Amino acid sequence: MSGKLAVVGLGPGDARYLTREALAALDEADALYGYGPYLHRVAPRSGQVRHPTGNSEEGARARAALAHAARGGKVAIVSGGDPGVFAMAASVCEEMAAGPPEWRALDMRIVPGVTAMLAVASRAGAPLGHDFCALSLSDNLKPWELIERRLAAAAEAGFVIALYNPVSQARTWQLAHAFTLLGRHLPGTTPVIFGRAVGRAGEGLVVTTLAEASAIAADMATLIIIGSRETRVLARDGKAPLVYTPRAVSSVPA
Amino acid sequence: MSGKLAVVGLGPGDARYLTREALAALDEADALYGYGPYLHRVAPRSGQVRHPTGNSEEGARARAALAHAARGGKVAIVSGGDPGVFAMAASVCEEMAAGPPEWRALDMRIVPGVTAMLAVASRAGAPLGHDFCALSLSDNLKPWELIERRLAAAAEAGFVIALYNPVSQARTWQLAHAFTLLGRHLPGTTPVIFGRAVGRAGEGLVVTTLAEASAIAADMATLIIIGSRETRVLARDGKAPLVYTPRAVSSVPA
Repeated sequence: MSGKLAVVGLGPGDARYLTREALAALDEADALYGYGPYLHRVAPRSGQVRHPTGNSEEGARARAALAHAARGGKVAIVSGGDPGVFAMAASVCEEMAAGPPEWRALDMRIVPGVTAMLAVASRAGAPLGHDFCALSLSDNLKPWELIERRLAAAAEAGFVIALYNPVSQARTWQLAHAFTLLGRHLPGTTPVIFGRAVGRAGEGLVVTTLAEASAIAADMATLIIIGSRETRVLARDGKAPLVYTPRAVSSVPA
Repeated sequence: MSGKLAVVGLGPGDARYLTREALAALDEADALYGYGPYLHRVAPRSGQVRHPTGNSEEGARARAALAHAARGGKVAIVSGGDPGVFAMAASVCEEMAAGPPEWRALDMRIVPGVTAMLAVASRAGAPLGHDFCALSLSDNLKPWELIERRLAAAAEAGFVIALYNPVSQARTWQLAHAFTLLGRHLPGTTPVIFGRAVGRAGEGLVVTTLAEASAIAADMATLIIIGSRETRVLARDGKAPLVYTPRAVSSVPA
């Protein structure tokens, strides 16, 4: 009997965001691995064993799931959002590269999902309607100096910026520094969106400006989108404003 | 009776990639608007009227759907992938801003989906596992000079690059120019992925290098991912190689 490993994206929140492919992959598995709160989103099925792990244990989780599949199990690792965006797919590939040869021979597949920036953008309008980048603000795995360089390059080149992992309990000063740095490259009126827990209980969306952004609270469940010079805000009577980046560029910066 | 407009992402291909939320939004609609081949992916429902339009008629399609909803219709516009990424959501926001005040008062929502780069990445491994950008190579709506500047900035700053709209019948030279330009900033060994029609009939994936990329055919259904200096290729016996970008940066370029 040969094992299988599926790395499954749950989307940003509850079961509304699951694709049929993800549902089928979860149903096929005899064992589920994942960060506890993500596993909690998956409807229980009898005979399926769950292996919850902590938030920062990606490598250990990937190794345990690979070893289980190599023993012949039908295993799924669940990931919030899309597994390929700052999530489990890269960990699994890294551990396959470093591990025993039988891990590389496994039947492994990745099931995509709706990543957080797409869900937040959908609530705000179309801020990612033109060229954009996705950047993790965590300096746990890369130097802060490199993050600063990337923020400056993205803002100068006119990319809208989706910030993943803006804050954690251990990383408290980075987000304010990022806003200050971006303020040197973009007008203070640049639209900024804070999307918190989009698709889940307690969902919240705040539309503000770069000049005011430091006053808005963010946490581990927040994704932030910073507009470009082209991004606009359309006010609506009795409704939240729409934030969008037009498909056409009206002027090219010098 | 007040109308409604939903802008619905179908994901990259067949019904496997639909979220439950997208299915529900399609089912609720009395009228569907969209590019013909996208509408064709939606299962027919009796009493639902379809309004197929051509590929480059986004503005006219958005206006027709907004006018229909403003007359009281329950309308959905379908979009391939995610409607917020180089797709219909920005068009709808632009037309709401330019149109009559009643359009801005409409009940409008956007239903996110799996955008093409996530599907292509899932087939290849985890190339978007670290910071990345998404850039349309079409110079129909922005100057080519700006595209060149963004490609150079993204490559220099170490972003993996997902290229949307690499080629069309009218745009035939741009992709080769982009590879030549990127070759000035990245090693010729940089992994490049061509994903064609991922999730649909005729799906194909080619993993090559930047030095060899110009020899690979691309068309309107192709999405291209160009790695960073960190992106790696893991060979596997009897299986396609895995392309992934590790979560940690091992070295910072000068």
